[in-house]
Parts: sequence; structure tokens; C-alpha cells
Amino acid sequence: QITVEDYEQAAKSLAKALMIREKYARLAYHRFPRTTARYLGHRRVDAAPPEEGQGHIAITQSCFADFHPPPLPQEDPYCLDDAPPNLGYLVRMQGGILFVYDNKKMLERQEPHSLPYPDLETYTVDMSHILALITDGPTKTYCHRRLNFLESKFSLHEMLNEMSEFKELKSNPHRDFYNVRKVDTHIHAAACMNQKHLLRFIKHTYQTEPDRAVAEKRGRKITLRQVFDSLHMDPYDLTVDSLDVHAGRQTFHRFDKFNSKYNPVGASELRDLYLKTENYLGGEYFARMVKEVARELEESKYQYSEPRLSIYGRSPEEWPNLARWFIQHKVYSPNMRWIIQVPRIYDIFRSKKLLPSFGKMLENIFLPLFEATINPQDHQELHLFLKYVTGFDSVDDESKHSDHMFSDKSPSPDIWTSEQNPPYSYYLYYMYANIMVLNNLRRERGLSTFLFRPHCGEAGSITHLVSAFLTADNISHGLLLKKSPVLQYLYYLAQIPIAMSPLSNNSLFLEYSKNPLREFLHKGLHVSLSTDDPMQFHYTKEALMEEYAIAAQVWKLSTCDLCEIARNSVLQSGLSHQEKQKFLGQNYYKEGPEGNDIRKTNVAQIRMAFRYETLCNELSFLSDAMKSEEITIQVVPGGQVESIF
Amino acid sequence: QITVEDYEQAAKSLAKALMIREKYARLAYHRFPRTTARYLGHRRVDAAPPEEGQGHIAITQSCFADFHPPPLPQEDPYCLDDAPPNLGYLVRMQGGILFVYDNKKMLERQEPHSLPYPDLETYTVDMSHILALITDGPTKTYCHRRLNFLESKFSLHEMLNEMSEFKELKSNPHRDFYNVRKVDTHIHAAACMNQKHLLRFIKHTYQTEPDRAVAEKRGRKITLRQVFDSLHMDPYDLTVDSLDVHAGRQTFHRFDKFNSKYNPVGASELRDLYLKTENYLGGEYFARMVKEVARELEESKYQYSEPRLSIYGRSPEEWPNLARWFIQHKVYSPNMRWIIQVPRIYDIFRSKKLLPSFGKMLENIFLPLFEATINPQDHQELHLFLKYVTGFDSVDDESKHSDHMFSDKSPSPDIWTSEQNPPYSYYLYYMYANIMVLNNLRRERGLSTFLFRPHCGEAGSITHLVSAFLTADNISHGLLLKKSPVLQYLYYLAQIPIAMSPLSNNSLFLEYSKNPLREFLHKGLHVSLSTDDPMQFHYTKEALMEEYAIAAQVWKLSTCDLCEIARNSVLQSGLSHQEKQKFLGQNYYKEGPEGNDIRKTNVAQIRMAFRYETLCNELSFLSDAMKSEEITIQVVPGGQVESIF
Repeated sequence: QITVEDYEQAAKSLAKALMIREKYARLAYHRFPRTTARYLGHRRVDAAPPEEGQGHIAITQSCFADFHPPPLPQEDPYCLDDAPPNLGYLVRMQGGILFVYDNKKMLERQEPHSLPYPDLETYTVDMSHILALITDGPTKTYCHRRLNFLESKFSLHEMLNEMSEFKELKSNPHRDFYNVRKVDTHIHAAACMNQKHLLRFIKHTYQTEPDRAVAEKRGRKITLRQVFDSLHMDPYDLTVDSLDVHAGRQTFHRFDKFNSKYNPVGASELRDLYLKTENYLGGEYFARMVKEVARELEESKYQYSEPRLSIYGRSPEEWPNLARWFIQHKVYSPNMRWIIQVPRIYDIFRSKKLLPSFGKMLENIFLPLFEATINPQDHQELHLFLKYVTGFDSVDDESKHSDHMFSDKSPSPDIWTSEQNPPYSYYLYYMYANIMVLNNLRRERGLSTFLFRPHCGEAGSITHLVSAFLTADNISHGLLLKKSPVLQYLYYLAQIPIAMSPLSNNSLFLEYSKNPLREFLHKGLHVSLSTDDPMQFHYTKEALMEEYAIAAQVWKLSTCDLCEIARNSVLQSGLSHQEKQKFLGQNYYKEGPEGNDIRKTNVAQIRMAFRYETLCNELSFLSDAMKSEEITIQVVPGGQVESIF
Repeated sequence: QITVEDYEQAAKSLAKALMIREKYARLAYHRFPRTTARYLGHRRVDAAPPEEGQGHIAITQSCFADFHPPPLPQEDPYCLDDAPPNLGYLVRMQGGILFVYDNKKMLERQEPHSLPYPDLETYTVDMSHILALITDGPTKTYCHRRLNFLESKFSLHEMLNEMSEFKELKSNPHRDFYNVRKVDTHIHAAACMNQKHLLRFIKHTYQTEPDRAVAEKRGRKITLRQVFDSLHMDPYDLTVDSLDVHAGRQTFHRFDKFNSKYNPVGASELRDLYLKTENYLGGEYFARMVKEVARELEESKYQYSEPRLSIYGRSPEEWPNLARWFIQHKVYSPNMRWIIQVPRIYDIFRSKKLLPSFGKMLENIFLPLFEATINPQDHQELHLFLKYVTGFDSVDDESKHSDHMFSDKSPSPDIWTSEQNPPYSYYLYYMYANIMVLNNLRRERGLSTFLFRPHCGEAGSITHLVSAFLTADNISHGLLLKKSPVLQYLYYLAQIPIAMSPLSNNSLFLEYSKNPLREFLHKGLHVSLSTDDPMQFHYTKEALMEEYAIAAQVWKLSTCDLCEIARNSVLQSGLSHQEKQKFLGQNYYKEGPEGNDIRKTNVAQIRMAFRYETLCNELSFLSDAMKSEEITIQVVPGGQVESIF
């Protein structure tokens, strides 16, 4: 028997968990919903609407990451002129985290520039609070019941209001599912074209420039024709079958097999030539394909995407090279914003003796960013490129097991020299820590900040979702929330965005019909739809539309459902404040129905009101239960009387 | 306990059922597999391959319907010059069937021209044999076991040969799923554009010609602007939501609601104006949209479709009007072949006093075709149009109940004057009967014949599938085969083509995950994928690709599976012998692997061999069991030993 005291304790612990997330979010300029913050701050629900009349700066300073607005049509997106001057700060890595010093003297004194720096001891204490919570019996019961209630409540809403919602949409002029903005919130640049597109491109290059030198081996130049000769193939005969980049039944639960699908015809030479930014051609072919994808997005007008480009951390030169690739090939598109993905493959580099320690990898990843932030004048290309980068992703097979348990006793990155790969949680902490310091440094001088948006909960341990709860602005996948009611409820209360890719999951980890997207959407989690890898998973020219269409068909989603997902995707994205105002409405940053402009989003106000009232209701139980020992009887919107006990 | 004698009896009855189908198929120039015919004809399997070296005429005369090849590029598809002369025959309807007489004297003598004419008494006896069979216990057990075996055998084949199949496809040059031919074997012309296309077209007409007179009411001309004014709407504001032609959750098991989705904005005025061939504009708007769809197919190059146009049977003028619409608006496309759909709505016309009897409806449908066949010179437009028509469909809600039981005691069509609608089986028999006579008449003078391809087994009684087993060349839907093992096994043995539309079913009658397509495909039934109504069901620009993509994703179909379905679709279609040779290979009409040209179909020979051996194996059980009383031990391909008892 669960007692009232148990529930009180559960509610208090949940509230504490949310406050912990809020702390880490604010430190890193990540987002935290103001509604949730309000309920955590005040025990009694205040009936006043969220603060009105705030200017743009107040908004962006309070709870928004600050992204560069895109250049105006008359502006040159590659203009290098506006780099601010050198601040002359020094940066040193200590314990895997970059510290900033005003000058040499301060460095000698070990007095870092006044920025928040993370503290591993506090972090592990915070983390253990959440870890304890997810296995605590009463808390599990509490969350499980609340989630069941959320699902039933939505069913009821659907039965009562489906026709009213559709009526609202029907009378909404000039806006429907086809012309609401959709952002592909999770897509890897190296797989952003579909298999047919890659095939056509390969054939085209062979037809138009077979004698061009495209590689160099032991000082000898190799032409495109020679590349294909050495592979014993004629590109004319090439098909999507022989290209063999599509994930099939063979890849299910085989992430290793999936990864090798990135090699066209199984040949890593072709991956290097066509899908990499660094090669003999300076990544020209890859840039051209990405630009073709971008042109299609621009023509579609309503679709945007956030492709991931890789930084591996093998060398500090990766950053200037990537920036040069971007500028030289003019890869900018108004319909794309970039994310940097860092593969968790330290062990591979270490075993090949490319890196002495994990700390060096972190330094290679982050030091160039600190330098470009302190002295943009001397890093003009990188400074420019960073305007179009809005976040970081952490990627690899989550199902790989790690022997190491991350704690404050773990060896720090500078002394992590073993060939063993650090665990997921270790990667996440050190990426977060450096992004957080970097963001504060950048914000101090008025530059854009970055969101941490790791892959999380695709497979492996559910503790990954605990790490991301503290460190991530939003996550990709989140499938395993299915297995932990406490985390699922926390992700709901904190409205943590989740970019889901059910077609990717269907080929790798979870059959389509078992995907929890529909259930998460119904409960009110902040989900969006994304493609992950069109090259491997999709059949049609419009991968994102294929994703929406299949979800709509298989789960019988309503237009309002689809438009809610599309609205979520824009909110989750790294599009700028200006673009979000244009795509979602002036007040998009306000929570609840007043933040929705149906003329732009095609989401019914009835739906928005339902979502908002439901969230407030859940939060009020939390704050009420924290102080009250009586059984609480609440009247929920719609008139049903319910007792939470 | 089932005895050997029971099985013998079951096998004999199944063989008899197949022979009955063969009889009706040959009478109407429908297709019947030669392999099955061979096993029915000889008790012992002869090992010889199907007859070689037949010329084109022999082939088309023996087992193929004869379709006009498309005009050559330099030829005018609308050339009216080649109409053959008048034969002077007379035609009279008797008992719902059109009889042909050489001249007036023969008519007076009641001696019809020598053609096969159907005999209702025989038909009802044949029908009752099948009806008895589908409820016969031992036969059900026999078929159920064989079907289970077929499914398990395919699973085994898949486990053993999946990689070999894919290897075959990978080494097949220049051909993959994207460039194999696919035919949309079941699509209604009035819904062949997607909702977004229709919306764009409506807006475009309003922008470009708002003041054009598009209708007439009580002698007063009405402009496009006035049409929209009277509906109180501005097309600029129109969205796919307000257009409201998409099937949603509301249409599930509500065919009535689905039918009304054909009315844009719920207004039948707009249906008349945009989606009909007969209206004030002479069907111009509809023709323009159909042509836009055709242009997209032509650009895609590998996609074909067989849209249905309606003939209602209210008046004999419908045919010349339709032919005129086709020619006047130049609707011909090399990527389309036309089917005529006859809605089963006699009751509506009768209650509105538009028809005196069901016989009159049949006469309105078929008499113009007989006349145009006997005297093409005087019906040049219809004669021309019929070159591009390859079959008939029978359409309506199958789940509607009928009180009448069709038998040889049923009132014949000329005295069917009640307001009650005849049952499905009655419609099918009389459509088949007239098509059969017509085909024989046309074949006699070297004109193309028609296939009867009714909607069947979408809902309602499974006896519909019995009617179609006798009368149809192939069917659309066939979902209810799921419920009758005997019919399912018969449809397998006779390789009756089934055009399935799982997305349509998902909105109307059966959830996607429960659709039997995958199971039918595995067992070896001759299934294809089709869209039914892109306007109502699909989201993307490429409806047929959406259909294939969703099936591939949800059911994890392999490339070989997809290409097998695509190959089936071309075989099932009304494309001409010449086109099929071009798209499937010179020997496409041969059964088994020798009929497959992997360079054109991308279907692995391993798969073709498996299908053929499996079918032969099933048929040999049938012929063996018919003569043998010992328990038969058969070694099936792959080496497994199995006993059928």
C-alpha cells in the first residue's frame, strides 16, 4: 500500500530533480519551460499569465539560447568583415575542462576569468539524486499513474474535441499541413541525400569528369576512372542495390553493420570521395550534394533541416578545415542550420596512437572554439562558420557496453590514457562542461551560444537518459523513456524536446508499430519527427514528408497532431528568434495557447489549451502535494473530478 | 479424423473448381495460368517446358487478352481513319444479355450469330459447386494446411536464400527498384491527383479565369467567381483542411462518409465542375488535371497507371460523351490505360425514375459498345477511345446488405423493375455475360478485348469472391480471402491477380498492420500494390511510391519482394504484349523462371524458381491425390521431406 507520505516524498523528489535540471540548463543557456519554473518557484499556482511586454533581449537573455538570425537577402553570408577584436585571454585545459584566464599573470595565479565552471563533485551528487529516484518504488508508482492518466486524458480529449479541432483548422485560412514549417531536427549530413540521389550524383561525376584527379596515393594522382577501375565496376551499371547503402533487415540490432552502410558499394574509397569534407578534392563532391539537398529544401519552402557535420577530435585542424570547406564551397542555405556531431570513438583513435589521452580529444574539439571566440580576428573563417552552427551532438552506438562507472572518482580526461573508451555519461559530462563554459564566454561578448543535443535513449542503459536530463537541451531518439516511468514523467514536466526517427528505429532497434512516438505525443511530451539518415532509411525524394506520411498513416494521426509535431520541430530547432516569430507567430516563446498563432502553425487553440492546462495541472499536483497532507481533490478542465490518490 | 478419402474428394473438388474457372476464363478471353491448366489436363506432371516458338498471334490467341499496342511516337493517337466497315449485324437484349444477329431475318428466326452465349442455369450449377466447396470441412482443412505450408515454406526460403537473392540483384547491372516498371493497377480517375494537387488546381483556375462561365443554372450562366461567392469562400484561403477530401479516422467503416469526400469543401458543385467529364465545360478542368497527373507519370518514366472512368448506365449517350471528352481534351498518355467503372447504383437511378429496369441499365452500358464494334465507321470516336480501354470494373460499397439471393430463379434484368438493388453476384454475372459476348464479337473481327476486373472482397460477404472466381480476370482488394482458406487457396492455384491497396483499406476497412498483403505475397498469391484514391489517402506527390515505401517499411519487404510486386503489377495490367515484352522481357508470358528477365524486372531467378516449383508442387499434390490412394511422400525443393496427410 502506497501512503500519502510516500507520494509527498515522491513529489518533493521530482520537484528537486526538475530544479537540478533547471540549474544546469540556466548555466548553459539551455531552455527550461517558464511554466515549470513558475510552479517550482511558487508553491501556490499564480493565476497571472507569463510576464508580458518583455523586449527581445530580455527574452533571449532569460530563457533562450541566442542564435544568429540568417543574413538578409542583400547580405553576403560569407562576409568575413565583422569579426570582433582579440580579447587576449588565455585558455588552459585542466581536468578535461577549458579554463579562461584574463592574462598570463592570472594564469600563473590560477585565477580564472569570472565564468561559471562546472564542479564534478556537485554534478555526481545531483546525478545520484536522479539515479535514486528512477528506482524508488513510490516515485515509480506515482509517475506511472500520472502517465496513465495523461494518456487517458488525451483519449478523452480526442473523443470530445476531435471534430472541434478539425473545425478550427478548416476555418483557418490559407494554412494547412503542407505549408506549416517543419524542421528535420535530426539528420546526418553524410546521409542527408537519399540513395537514388547519391547514385545519380556518382554517375553524373563519372560521366562528366572521368579523367579528373580525385585522390592521391603514394604521391601518384588517381583519376575518377581509375578509382572505379580499381573497384572493378562501371558506374553505368551501378544501381541502388549494388550501391548497397540502404539499411535492410540485416541491420536490425546490428549497429556495426549499419555503420558500414555508409560505404557505397562497401568501398571506403567512395565514402571518402563522396561523403567527406576532407579529401583530395577538399570535399567538393560532398558539398555539391549537400547543396543539391539544400536547393530542394529551398524550393519546398516550408522544410528546414539541421544536418550534423563531424568533428572527431583527432586534431585541432579539423575546425579550420571544416570552416574552409563550408566557405569555399558556399554551403550556406537559409533552410539549413548546422550541428556538430562528435562520435564517441576515442578508443579507436587511442588504439591507433592518434591521441595520447581523452583530454587531448576534448582539447582538439573545444580549444579552437575558445580561441575563435576570444580572438575572432585571427580565426575569421571559423568565426563565420560558427554563426550557422547552433549545437553539438554526441553520436555512436549506445548499445555498446562500458565497464567503467562514471563518478567523481573516475580518472580525469587528462589522465584517461587507457585504450578503453570512456562511458556515455563521461562523454556527456565533459562535452556539457566545455559547451557550458564556452557559451558563457560567448554570451559575455555577445556571440551566439550552442545547444547540446546528444543522441540519447536509442539503445543501451536508461542511465543515459539521466545524463541527458542534466546536460542536454534536447535529445534525439529517447525510445528508452518507454522503460522508465520516472524519467518519462520528468521529460514531460521539463518539456525536454525529443527528436524521434521511427523509420530509423524500425531498421535498427525497434519495429515501427512498437515505437512510442504516438504514445509520447498523446501524453504531451515534446516530440518532433526527423529522418536521421535518408540515405539508409527512406525511399522517396522527400524523406521528411515520407516520415510524416508513414506516421500519419500507421498511427492515424490527425492533421492537428501532425501540425503539433511540426510546430514542436520548429521550437526545438536552432532557428533564430526572428525566424521562429515568422514561422510560429510573434509570441511563439510564450507557453500555452497565447504562444500559438493558428494562422501560422495550423494547431488548434483547443489543443494548445488542453496541453497547457494539462501541464499546469500536473505541476500543481506536484507543488500541492509538496505542502499538503490532505487528500487533494482537483477539478480538471472538462469538468471531471479526479483524485490523484 | 480426416481420412485419405476425404482428401481425395477435396482435391477432386478443387480441381473441378479450377476447371470451372478455366472454362469461364477461356470463354471471355481472360487469363488462366498454363501451368495450372497443364496439371488439370494431365494427371502425371509432364516435365517438358511450356511450348516454345509460338508466334505473337498464337500467344495472344491462346491465353492472352489482346490489347492495342500504344501508337508509335510518330503516330497520332487520335487518328480516326482506321475504323473498319459496318458488318450490319443487329443486337437485341434478351434476359439482360445482348444477342447478336446477322440480319433481320436471323433475328426474326431467333438464330443468333455464332458466338458463345452464357447460360444462367449452368452458371448457377457451377457457382453452387464452389459455394459448397468453401464450407466443406475436409476441403477447408486441406486448404488451410496447404496455405500454412506455403507460408512456412516461404519463411524457410527467406532464411536460406535472402542473401543469395540480394547478391543476384546486386550483380544485376543498371536495374534496381527505382527503374523497374510499376503499374498502379487500381486507381479512380476522379481521385488520381493528390489533395494538394487538386487544391493548387482550383486556386490556379480562380486566379487565371475567375470570370469564365463554368456552369449554367436555369438558363443563367454562372462564372467561377460566382460559384465561389455562392459557397461563401475565397479560393485564396482554401486549404487542404477546408477542401476536406482526405479520408480520416471518421471514414473507418463508413463508406458513405468516404463517398462524400469526393465533394471538395463538401460542395457537389465543385465535384461536378472539377472532377466530372460531363459538365458545362465539357469536363475540361478534370481533363487538365488528369493530364497533369499523366505528365508526372511520363516524367517518372517507370510508373504507369490504369485509372477508372465512370459509365453509369443512365443513358446510352454516356459512351459517346466520354469518348468525345477523351479526344477533345487529348487525354491520351502512353503511361495510362483506361478502365471503365460501373457503379452498382441501379437503385438510386430507379428511385429517381431515371431507369425503368435493370435491363435498361445494362443496355445503356453495353449496347453502344456492341454498336461501335459492329459499325465502327459510324462510331469513330468511341471506336478510337476503346483502343485505350482495357477493362471493366464494378464498384460500390460491398458491405451493403442485399435481401435478394441470386439464382436461376431470380427475375431477369428486363423484368427487374423494383427499386431494390440487385445483389453483387447478380451485377457480376450480367456484366461478365455481356463482356464475354462482346469480347467474342470483337475478337472475331480482330478488335481488342476487355478484362473484367471488379472490386471484390473489400468488405461484405465472402460469396462475392466466389462470383469473381468465375467471372473476373482479376480483382481489386481481395481482403476477405483472409477469411476463407478454400477461396484463398483457389485464388493461389489459379494465380488470380489481386490489386491490393493497404492504405485505402487502412482508412476504410482494415488497419494497416492487419492487412494480409504481406501474408498473401509470402504464400505466392499474385498481388500488386495500388493506390485506389490518392486524393483521399496519400500525403506525398508520388502516391504509388508512397504505397510501396510504406509497405516496405512496415513489413520490412526486401528489394526482391518489392520488385516481385512491381513485376506482378505489369503482368496484371492491361499494357499490351509489346509493352510487357519491353518492360519484363521477351518471354514474360512464359511461366516460371524462364519467363523472367532479371535485367528488366530485378526479380531474382532464385525467387522465380521457388515460386514456380512451389506452385507445381501444390498442383502435383492435387493431380496425384486425385488418382492415388496411397499416402504420398513428396520431396519438395530444398530437400525437406513432407507428407501432405
